[in-house]
Amino acid sequence: MNLPFAIERLIEEFTRLPGIGVKTAQRLAFFVIEADDEILNLSEAIVRAKREIKYCNICYNFSEEDLCPICKSQKRDQSTICVVEEPKDILSIEKTKEYNGLYHVLHGAISPLEGIGPEDIKIRELITRLADSNIEEIIVATNPTIEGEATSVYLSKLISQFDILVTRIAHGIPVGSGIEYADEITMTKALEGRRKLR
Amino acid sequence: MNLPFAIERLIEEFTRLPGIGVKTAQRLAFFVIEADDEILNLSEAIVRAKREIKYCNICYNFSEEDLCPICKSQKRDQSTICVVEEPKDILSIEKTKEYNGLYHVLHGAISPLEGIGPEDIKIRELITRLADSNIEEIIVATNPTIEGEATSVYLSKLISQFDILVTRIAHGIPVGSGIEYADEITMTKALEGRRKLR
Repeated sequence: MNLPFAIERLIEEFTRLPGIGVKTAQRLAFFVIEADDEILNLSEAIVRAKREIKYCNICYNFSEEDLCPICKSQKRDQSTICVVEEPKDILSIEKTKEYNGLYHVLHGAISPLEGIGPEDIKIRELITRLADSNIEEIIVATNPTIEGEATSVYLSKLISQFDILVTRIAHGIPVGSGIEYADEITMTKALEGRRKLR
Repeated sequence: MNLPFAIERLIEEFTRLPGIGVKTAQRLAFFVIEADDEILNLSEAIVRAKREIKYCNICYNFSEEDLCPICKSQKRDQSTICVVEEPKDILSIEKTKEYNGLYHVLHGAISPLEGIGPEDIKIRELITRLADSNIEEIIVATNPTIEGEATSVYLSKLISQFDILVTRIAHGIPVGSGIEYADEITMTKALEGRRKLR
């Protein structure tokens, strides 16, 4: 049996989403068809988010206005920038309530294998920010992947032209996890990053 | 940090979908915002499917017209109806290419615990079909759950007023699986349903 075209089409569109295979897309499509009309709010929310969300002109985080609430806030420490790969990384950091500085979203990481060079992510924009400001520290919070590390090394070299401290977030054993579960690279990082207790 | 309203809203709408929790909804929302405008096709496909897909007037399968292609087809065996709980079950049966009869979708199963009685699913509509037709066999293909079994028993009693054979699909060890992995109920069904080899 061929499914009606409108269902086939909906299944196909759902498979565009990350982590949604054909089986799941089918389940979602059938759910949508049998759901009450409130499900149309999803359709509207997609259109609205695409239309209203742009990037902050300074830090490139998601924003509804030219400047995001963090860049606009006078309560944030204007001397520190935390550099992340993606907007969602900011969520994780903000959740700690431990950081009160500014952010810069690179929108990716340097990856020669995928043909992504420094000019393809928001590095130039970061350097421009440094030139005319009183930034004292850059915290590099890119992912602990090959790409994230490469980006981190590149940034620290590039920023050495300024009188700015560049730091990298710590890598090691996650809190609550056991040492026996750590992979070799994490364990190596944990040993390298060891600190004097007293 | 509060996310922009349009993002919060999109995340919330994604969580309406089955199997999508807050974390996944967040990932999907961020994907949508960063995706190119083709993702708007998903929005349109939802609206279109909701608008164009209705139920077949005879079998209650999904259909774009008053009658579904199976009910309209002259090539299908008009003497057999396979009764299923949901439209998606028809997909699984059609995939075998072994069945050439008609269908009837109940849109649920009898479940006293959830307050779903015979009058809440398309049973009356099935009986109406039997009254004025030449149906010879009803294959009950409801799920092997308590609700599906209850529905099966109910249907077979109800249809006993007609001169129609009522059969139930077989339950047993799935092909390719091992006996050691079968649960007790499946194993019991497999023993009960044993057939003479020669």
